Amino acid sequence: MTGSTFGTVFRLTTFGESHGAGLGGVVDGCPAGVALTSEMIQREVDLRRPGQGAASTARREADRVELLSGVFEGRTTGTPIGFVVRNEDQRSRDYSQIGHVYRPGHADVTYDAKYGLRDYRGGGRSSGRETVSRVAGGAVAGALLSGLGVAVAAYTVELGGVRAEARDPWGAWEREFGAPCDEVVPLWAERVRAAREAGDSIGGVVELVARGVPAGLGEPVFDKLDARLAYALMGVGAVKAVEVGAGCAAARAQGSANNDPLVPGGFASNNAGGILGGISSGQDIVLRAHVKPIPSIAREQDTLTDQGLPTRLRVGGRHDVAAIARINPVLRAMVLLTLADMWLLQKRMG
Amino acid sequence: MTGSTFGTVFRLTTFGESHGAGLGGVVDGCPAGVALTSEMIQREVDLRRPGQGAASTARREADRVELLSGVFEGRTTGTPIGFVVRNEDQRSRDYSQIGHVYRPGHADVTYDAKYGLRDYRGGGRSSGRETVSRVAGGAVAGALLSGLGVAVAAYTVELGGVRAEARDPWGAWEREFGAPCDEVVPLWAERVRAAREAGDSIGGVVELVARGVPAGLGEPVFDKLDARLAYALMGVGAVKAVEVGAGCAAARAQGSANNDPLVPGGFASNNAGGILGGISSGQDIVLRAHVKPIPSIAREQDTLTDQGLPTRLRVGGRHDVAAIARINPVLRAMVLLTLADMWLLQKRMG
Amino acid sequence: MTGSTFGTVFRLTTFGESHGAGLGGVVDGCPAGVALTSEMIQREVDLRRPGQGAASTARREADRVELLSGVFEGRTTGTPIGFVVRNEDQRSRDYSQIGHVYRPGHADVTYDAKYGLRDYRGGGRSSGRETVSRVAGGAVAGALLSGLGVAVAAYTVELGGVRAEARDPWGAWEREFGAPCDEVVPLWAERVRAAREAGDSIGGVVELVARGVPAGLGEPVFDKLDARLAYALMGVGAVKAVEVGAGCAAARAQGSANNDPLVPGGFASNNAGGILGGISSGQDIVLRAHVKPIPSIAREQDTLTDQGLPTRLRVGGRHDVAAIARINPVLRAMVLLTLADMWLLQKRMG
Amino acid sequence: MTGSTFGTVFRLTTFGESHGAGLGGVVDGCPAGVALTSEMIQREVDLRRPGQGAASTARREADRVELLSGVFEGRTTGTPIGFVVRNEDQRSRDYSQIGHVYRPGHADVTYDAKYGLRDYRGGGRSSGRETVSRVAGGAVAGALLSGLGVAVAAYTVELGGVRAEARDPWGAWEREFGAPCDEVVPLWAERVRAAREAGDSIGGVVELVARGVPAGLGEPVFDKLDARLAYALMGVGAVKAVEVGAGCAAARAQGSANNDPLVPGGFASNNAGGILGGISSGQDIVLRAHVKPIPSIAREQDTLTDQGLPTRLRVGGRHDVAAIARINPVLRAMVLLTLADMWLLQKRMG
Repeated sequence: MTGSTFGTVFRLTTFGESHGAGLGGVVDGCPAGVALTSEMIQREVDLRRPGQGAASTARREADRVELLSGVFEGRTTGTPIGFVVRNEDQRSRDYSQIGHVYRPGHADVTYDAKYGLRDYRGGGRSSGRETVSRVAGGAVAGALLSGLGVAVAAYTVELGGVRAEARDPWGAWEREFGAPCDEVVPLWAERVRAAREAGDSIGGVVELVARGVPAGLGEPVFDKLDARLAYALMGVGAVKAVEVGAGCAAARAQGSANNDPLVPGGFASNNAGGILGGISSGQDIVLRAHVKPIPSIAREQDTLTDQGLPTRLRVGGRHDVAAIARINPVLRAMVLLTLADMWLLQKRMG
Repeated sequence: MTGSTFGTVFRLTTFGESHGAGLGGVVDGCPAGVALTSEMIQREVDLRRPGQGAASTARREADRVELLSGVFEGRTTGTPIGFVVRNEDQRSRDYSQIGHVYRPGHADVTYDAKYGLRDYRGGGRSSGRETVSRVAGGAVAGALLSGLGVAVAAYTVELGGVRAEARDPWGAWEREFGAPCDEVVPLWAERVRAAREAGDSIGGVVELVARGVPAGLGEPVFDKLDARLAYALMGVGAVKAVEVGAGCAAARAQGSANNDPLVPGGFASNNAGGILGGISSGQDIVLRAHVKPIPSIAREQDTLTDQGLPTRLRVGGRHDVAAIARINPVLRAMVLLTLADMWLLQKRMG
Repeated sequence: MTGSTFGTVFRLTTFGESHGAGLGGVVDGCPAGVALTSEMIQREVDLRRPGQGAASTARREADRVELLSGVFEGRTTGTPIGFVVRNEDQRSRDYSQIGHVYRPGHADVTYDAKYGLRDYRGGGRSSGRETVSRVAGGAVAGALLSGLGVAVAAYTVELGGVRAEARDPWGAWEREFGAPCDEVVPLWAERVRAAREAGDSIGGVVELVARGVPAGLGEPVFDKLDARLAYALMGVGAVKAVEVGAGCAAARAQGSANNDPLVPGGFASNNAGGILGGISSGQDIVLRAHVKPIPSIAREQDTLTDQGLPTRLRVGGRHDVAAIARINPVLRAMVLLTLADMWLLQKRMG
Repeated sequence: MTGSTFGTVFRLTTFGESHGAGLGGVVDGCPAGVALTSEMIQREVDLRRPGQGAASTARREADRVELLSGVFEGRTTGTPIGFVVRNEDQRSRDYSQIGHVYRPGHADVTYDAKYGLRDYRGGGRSSGRETVSRVAGGAVAGALLSGLGVAVAAYTVELGGVRAEARDPWGAWEREFGAPCDEVVPLWAERVRAAREAGDSIGGVVELVARGVPAGLGEPVFDKLDARLAYALMGVGAVKAVEVGAGCAAARAQGSANNDPLVPGGFASNNAGGILGGISSGQDIVLRAHVKPIPSIAREQDTLTDQGLPTRLRVGGRHDVAAIARINPVLRAMVLLTLADMWLLQKRMG
């Protein structure tokens, strides 16, 4: 858990920025014998591609994942799994105007503060493009977990202030905007259209459910399961709040209503979101990530140059209006990576 | 960052449960030369004692911190700082009834699931008592940070659904309930009284501000400053949601309103909460922790025995009605520990 | 694995120096249900006490270990195990002369270089006294491993240049000097007597055997079992070389003689020392630690003050002539801690 | 420091095996602004190529390192540095005979024990080929350290039992066998010729010197500089013993001879090998790695099949007679990686 490595015993290390030669990662600590093919990884990565619906740009990213090691005859060998994704289009002209101007709401100014220099051709490492390695790594975690009967769904429950009912969360990945029901899709499409027309952008809320997680995962007192999941989700760009179970609403409830009574075979409710004292209870784990609007907008904004001089900037190029639903598979990957790690940590204790 | 150790280079390791001989911890990685006395630590620990106002129980815990190593002639030596807090009152009779009955909303059931056995005399390691070691460790981090001009305030902004205006956040630690203004105190006192009378409990929201944090802290892409802070706060018992800056509200804003324009000398607003791309920007860091109501209530609740048989339980003894404001110094300690670690991580790069 | 924490999932964190209030440590990550009492820990700690035979000083250290947490009704609970050892005699007068003079062969000069200040009352954290926490932590590891049928012996095979035959390694802990046979004891006693008379000190070689270690432990490519064991042993003060199996002799052998032929049920020889490719093979693990002579000698030596001025120093007080055999239980503890960690790491994969 | 990741704050994560699509790694935690080009890395990698002199096989490995991220306009950006090396020749026919027979002295049997399955086309992850990623990562560490005035030399001091005098250690990398003087080259060539003729292999000893290392590096008590260096070197395949400074000889010396007297400006001798109490003293750091003979020999040996049946094996193909001098740049890389990590760890404390 340091910088570009995620996890304690199931670990993903990533590299790569938006305008370099390529991105990739290494999954270390995956047990041997897990069924895994490059197609399984590619399928997940394809879900976060742009050009997938109304909220997305038409920019084309092929994102072909090449598996380099750690898999033999369709199974993991227990050795590290290395993979690479080439940046096929490295032209930087669309971004040239912003080389020395800080984009508001972006990390340009803080990367300069931290590192003293910056790849000015784009967001570099702070670009959303970085998340392709998270999704690929998450696919490996998913392959491990699916063998244990654990499944994770990510679905949008709010977009641009318009809420949806989660009637079919497990089918959401096939719907536009990752919508959990059909009814909300035209409402959201209209919301996106309006924002695009206004040269603006919108945010939303993604809910995640992990089903089949055995009781006992989580390492108190600092590596409680909810602490690790909050770390995982808040580390994804654009996420500004994370809730577990009843979340913010719990702070307004009374104890008698918020406590989940134990009943034979389980619990009578799930305000806890499947986690008690930082340890999974066997119930569904329920999380929500609040995603800010995309900072790149077509409107002109006040800002500074990297020399500290005031200027105005209109971010060119084609940009998404919302991080949703491209962020959904990324958030899902982070939950899968966390659960795989916590499952292996608990396994050693059994 | 594993189990009972927090941090990468500034590390706190803790031990101890509610009914054992004592609790304590080790701070490793603190630079030499930081002014530190046991009084400085004791002062912070005293702030989380029970019996401090209307929301708290009258139970008495002395919590004397004894410093065992790492300090010489009033300064840290660079070697690990060990400390111990004795449990003076280890009588277990008040808890005997609950030895084999799972308390709803507590970790009894998940500790049994994880470890297969459990110290049934109380919450054990899952008790709020564990946090005394966090506060002591946080005091060491605070000593380091105050030398750098960094200060952190924790104050209650909502209790039992009643909001307060943060007029005097830096004086809140001296007010009952950690209130950020005088006006709200009688309202909250009434709210607490009503809940106690009903045999119930209430939750609330604690806001934290870190001032003077230099730009550049945070280790993308997984150890972004906000990710680490979310991990730190969500790992405190009873916290169910964490927000950064505008937080949940950001998900409903448009990009044009949510982006903080850069202006000479800084920013025109702080929706980001002082963190861009996971790196501190030099603005105030603003966080909110949503705290669930205390699960121990005087009302009878449905539950199970540890043999899986249905029963009903009324948790005896005297219990707090709200974790607030005793949780405030704990949350503050977690922010201090995180900032100290991230500051040292960034320092090596400069 | 950073500073004062040893291990990845079975972790020992220690604190304390020779002239502070006390020393101690925290074992985190030990599974629940391991039979453990404070007597079991005390027994191991007693073996490293001074005043245990001819090579040792008569200085008296009681070293009573107090167990503070993590054990309930004679079994570990899975929560961290905290322990403390008081420094009963904190008088510093015997060391006052050396407050500002660097003792040759000691860490005084490098501690000053690293930390900029130093507890001048003795070796502080660099004192051999620090190892009491290692032995206590190792006892917990030993309790876990003995349940798995793993046993570790440490015995002296050379002292002051006089070699011994390892006829009874498992009984060595009961013999003076940790001797692996009776015959060598009078020879070593004479060697020690002569060194003491000359105001000098001697070194030696300690061999360690781990029996019953299952095949499969070790985490290539960086955390190979031999790499971790070398790290563990070389981290003990006074150790200047570590060998695995045939060790230095392997570098002079031919492949045809050094390879251990596989035969039904195992191997025909054990030049590998029980480790192939960094993974345990199921054979005995064999290690040797080469221990330098104690640097504190009664003879006058050239040195510098902490102001850089030349001076001469005769280290007063009573000092051991050899680190052996007090170092033997410390080295054994480090092997136990390493094996417990590697066993849990492998267990998660099975 | 877990499995395939080396280091705490300057971290190398590697992947890849001998018969997969490729190998590579990620360097994370390298400060921004270090001058680095792919040519600098390629130069180091070329030094470990086979076909470089009499002790090596004629097998051809091109080992072209491709840099994928983390470098912009000739300088590191502070983001992770990803690199890949393709396995150009993946034919497995030369190894087909050994698919189900354990090669004596190799890790075949322990990999099967650990992982339950194995890429039988060669050594897989246990192959010496894995070290190409270490050397590439070490080159990045070297780029950082050379800016600080730190240089590391690796040179052979013994081969097949024939010792050499270290007259020109810094020129050794240009001589055959990594010889530290011209005189020994024909003696070693004859030694190698004889071993090859006999269908056998030989081992040797590599010495390493790190010059210019500032005083103060090392993190007691577990991450002493010598402990970390021993871990680094012992983790390289074929190394069976590691010495620091006087090493094994120190165990036979008396304290009066082994102590290095402090004199104005430094020390009168360097038996300590530049490390006191686990912290660098500013003197040259001196290490020796004892390297066993290559286990693949042309002679027929007793062994088992992976079904446990006795058989005899003659390892076909062309193999090196000695790991030396190909191992020398690998050992040097491990020292560079360790020093970079320890330097950054100390930097945060200053």
